[in-house]
Amino acid sequence: MTRAVLTLNAGSSSLKVALFPEAGDLPLATGLADKVGPDGVLHLKDAAGGTIAAAGDLTTHAGAMEAAIASFRAQWPDLDLLAIGHRVVHGGADRAAPVTVDDAVLTDLERLAPFAPLHQPHNLAGIRAAIDAFPGVPQVACFDTAFHRSHPFVNDTFALPRALYDEGVRRYGFHGLSYDYIAGELARTAPHLAEGRVVVAHLGNGASMCGIQNGRSVASTMGFSALDGLPMGTRSGQVDPGVLLYLMDQKGMSAGQISDLLYKQSGLLGLSGLSNDMRTLEAANTPHAAEAIDYFVFRCQREVGALAAALGGIDALVFCGGIGENSRQVRARICERLGWMGIEIDHAKNAGNDRVISSDLARTSVLVIPTNEELVIARAARAAVGLTKEAA
Amino acid sequence: MTRAVLTLNAGSSSLKVALFPEAGDLPLATGLADKVGPDGVLHLKDAAGGTIAAAGDLTTHAGAMEAAIASFRAQWPDLDLLAIGHRVVHGGADRAAPVTVDDAVLTDLERLAPFAPLHQPHNLAGIRAAIDAFPGVPQVACFDTAFHRSHPFVNDTFALPRALYDEGVRRYGFHGLSYDYIAGELARTAPHLAEGRVVVAHLGNGASMCGIQNGRSVASTMGFSALDGLPMGTRSGQVDPGVLLYLMDQKGMSAGQISDLLYKQSGLLGLSGLSNDMRTLEAANTPHAAEAIDYFVFRCQREVGALAAALGGIDALVFCGGIGENSRQVRARICERLGWMGIEIDHAKNAGNDRVISSDLARTSVLVIPTNEELVIARAARAAVGLTKEAA
Repeated sequence: MTRAVLTLNAGSSSLKVALFPEAGDLPLATGLADKVGPDGVLHLKDAAGGTIAAAGDLTTHAGAMEAAIASFRAQWPDLDLLAIGHRVVHGGADRAAPVTVDDAVLTDLERLAPFAPLHQPHNLAGIRAAIDAFPGVPQVACFDTAFHRSHPFVNDTFALPRALYDEGVRRYGFHGLSYDYIAGELARTAPHLAEGRVVVAHLGNGASMCGIQNGRSVASTMGFSALDGLPMGTRSGQVDPGVLLYLMDQKGMSAGQISDLLYKQSGLLGLSGLSNDMRTLEAANTPHAAEAIDYFVFRCQREVGALAAALGGIDALVFCGGIGENSRQVRARICERLGWMGIEIDHAKNAGNDRVISSDLARTSVLVIPTNEELVIARAARAAVGLTKEAA
Repeated sequence: MTRAVLTLNAGSSSLKVALFPEAGDLPLATGLADKVGPDGVLHLKDAAGGTIAAAGDLTTHAGAMEAAIASFRAQWPDLDLLAIGHRVVHGGADRAAPVTVDDAVLTDLERLAPFAPLHQPHNLAGIRAAIDAFPGVPQVACFDTAFHRSHPFVNDTFALPRALYDEGVRRYGFHGLSYDYIAGELARTAPHLAEGRVVVAHLGNGASMCGIQNGRSVASTMGFSALDGLPMGTRSGQVDPGVLLYLMDQKGMSAGQISDLLYKQSGLLGLSGLSNDMRTLEAANTPHAAEAIDYFVFRCQREVGALAAALGGIDALVFCGGIGENSRQVRARICERLGWMGIEIDHAKNAGNDRVISSDLARTSVLVIPTNEELVIARAARAAVGLTKEAA
């Protein structure tokens, strides 16, 4: 028997899948269904990087999941699926841990859809499809918001009338699975830092930062939605609320049009007029591409300062996410103006993508830690079915 | 002859007036018309603090202005008004200095009304009324945005499509007359600090911070509108753009309703459910009042960190504005978590409202400087009519 847990991470037009054994950090297989719809494609590979043949109905998320599972069964005919773990964007104001899904939980999570209308329905559709396909298998929901539930009231609220806070207009924070993983890695490999004041910069196509102290989230740049804080590939990040009033009042834009503008046409893409991809911008050498990078770097510096203030200082800065793990230039440029807070990187180490890239004598450590949201989901799925919970 | 310049500062329902002599920092008279409308009141006093009798039509800003002038003429029958200086919220993307108003300027400033619909029309109505009342007297417009025009592109833009930047959706920054005054006072009294990296916290019923280096604005917490950044008496400060999408999409609120919510029902008032006035909250001793103060203090700390990052460090923190100049508690609480950036206040000096309230050995100076927007306007008015421009 190949006993395993499956992890599913459903985006609006994508589905990431991974198959993990009962224990250990390495998946048996990983995969990505992209452009789910008429042009859907599915790529699966095994632990050695070899391609796993995959085919099926890729017009829906449910179809993509079933296609992946069928391919895994072909590869491991004795596959015994113990649990399925799902990344879910929103767990609401109280859920600080993963939960095994039943009808009551599903109903409760549906109630949160108005807070994340672009993401929550996809996540829940994925869970429903998995329940239909594997009725006996426990489904475990892991929330992007859960890690931040430890933050204090001043980081949970906006300065709005209380009634809005009470109905759920709060700074939830996101990317929690990534921060959970990084906090665990720090505790495992650098416990003295893990006890300190750490700013984690999750910089990818989505981007946020989190201030962590003693392994707990104190503050995050993301708030109520996945729009706030840092600029992203196509998302604006922080925007003056007066800009939205202007777009409504002076330009007559609807909520749908403004949502489309801020989620899909802004960020690096909007400023550069060229691409949402940092690699493309770094290679482009146009003035607008350079300004887009300048802005990204500046806003990152600004938020490191803001989160250090929230933490009462900073002992370490950790980069993760696609940009954080791979762009030497962005890391170096963010750090070069942060010397006043004890940050100084060793350019050889940075160029080598070392795990520790700060210079030996720097007061503040700077690390690069590849994040692993799938492993966090797999661990939650294992724990839900009574497999020994590993140290995070 | 009593040769003088008049300064006018028109709010939505108020009008601040001051009469300055040809030279010197002290006004001959100051006044406030409040609740302009059916219940309008006008209080005027002379330099010694004595009441100047005032009466007239207080139902409009023009009426209030004429009432104040009539009272001044009664007090100084030989009054010769050389120029009138106006505070104007918005000067647009290019105006970095005051300007003498003519028809072309007025038309140009009217074009900016969509960017500040709650303030610009009042300001321009004030100028028009003054032109009608004093056709021969130069009218000088002084802009809240002008001081910030030195900031770099990364602080001028949002991560939105270029077309919006080009049409004027930018981070203008406000409270510029106050920052101009403080920068001048620093240059005069503490030139070594003025050359350094200074965060100025203008904390009043409106509140913002400005990062200043070598006397020039580098960054500000206010952006496109007077809503952004710090929480204020009734204004929200920074709000996730996703919150506005939620209010539109899920609650069906109009631009007017959201504007009313964010400008008039939020901030300290919204969080406390009690008052927009810090003095009332400090005296109230209710949990919600305490949380409103906590939030205000926290957001101030957060933005000091963010602006220090924008400046590449911090040499001085300056408090001004009604709260900054008067609330010992707020100043002490903001500073108590900023020790990591070399800030440490001397509690006796803070309690005494001294000009320098940092401890003698602190790496970062902390000052309290009463701001004086009226004097900045008066100086601009004098300069416009060829009176020797004083050192700022």
